[in-house]
Amino acid sequence: MIVASFSVIPMGAGASAGRYIRAVHEMLKKSGVRVVVGAMSTTIEADSFEQICLLVEKANGILVDMEVPRVITTVTIDYRVDKEISIDSKLDSLR
Amino acid sequence: MIVASFSVIPMGAGASAGRYIRAVHEMLKKSGVRVVVGAMSTTIEADSFEQICLLVEKANGILVDMEVPRVITTVTIDYRVDKEISIDSKLDSLR
Amino acid sequence: MIVASFSVIPMGAGASAGRYIRAVHEMLKKSGVRVVVGAMSTTIEADSFEQICLLVEKANGILVDMEVPRVITTVTIDYRVDKEISIDSKLDSLR
Amino acid sequence: MIVASFSVIPMGAGASAGRYIRAVHEMLKKSGVRVVVGAMSTTIEADSFEQICLLVEKANGILVDMEVPRVITTVTIDYRVDKEISIDSKLDSLR
Repeated sequence: MIVASFSVIPMGAGASAGRYIRAVHEMLKKSGVRVVVGAMSTTIEADSFEQICLLVEKANGILVDMEVPRVITTVTIDYRVDKEISIDSKLDSLR
Repeated sequence: MIVASFSVIPMGAGASAGRYIRAVHEMLKKSGVRVVVGAMSTTIEADSFEQICLLVEKANGILVDMEVPRVITTVTIDYRVDKEISIDSKLDSLR
Repeated sequence: MIVASFSVIPMGAGASAGRYIRAVHEMLKKSGVRVVVGAMSTTIEADSFEQICLLVEKANGILVDMEVPRVITTVTIDYRVDKEISIDSKLDSLR
Repeated sequence: MIVASFSVIPMGAGASAGRYIRAVHEMLKKSGVRVVVGAMSTTIEADSFEQICLLVEKANGILVDMEVPRVITTVTIDYRVDKEISIDSKLDSLR
């Protein structure tokens, strides 16, 4: 599994982003991936880079459909081939 | 309050970072700031930029003391002057 | 056009990353996208999210082929629908 | 030396950020640190974490003075103790 976190920042759509982020979370939950909501970013578990990419693209599409003219997305991807990781295994290693 | 998330990535110290991140979390908890541990980054609440900076510097110092030769830190800071924010107010706006 | 910057951080492969980043740049240049090399990240211009994703995935594949066990990638994407942007138009707006 | 890149994203101040970023660059140049302007972020060389922090705080102050209600700042810091680095030494290692 690949663990990734991402945040989308709407520009040109006011100082508050709650309703945009909520719409993105709804899409993520419908997509079936594991989602952990954070105050600064959203963490997901994906099977592939392609899946992460599709979700990021969909998130951008949602904001544009909500009339946001510009979106800055930051994605951080943890790709590890020496052992299997997940959101839970990563959190466990921090306990 | 200023809400910030940050991650420290040790380079030249193996593929696993758990023990380093745990040491950073211990320092953060002792510092008295509110800390929320995530799979990809740690979120904190601070009173000032200076406080965030001191914690980031301390985190880097901890890793260097543990013989890490190089640390890549990413800090994201949410600074808002039109209304008071906190980790909880941000999470509430996502519900 | 979509402008994006990204950095790949090899973990478990020593403190220096030059040879890995050079291999990624070679791949990017062969791909035909516009590439601007920076000290902290690489900026590219792409036609689509899919193209950015493929390049990020290829970059990770290159590092794994070079025996890097873990890669942390950070991608920042500037997606703007109210006007056409490029690396040059963005740099021009800063002059 | 510590090499860092950072970007400030104004929220609640329209879709374009050029004039804000230009004001930040002016401040950085006056500060005397080495500055390299990029399409997606600005790279600086600093002597200490404290100096990076002061510049980031000043950048946020400039935006707030320009009536930006909210600023999202992302700072990436490359802190290396096994050898001396600079923007130029990092770029050289990529050639």
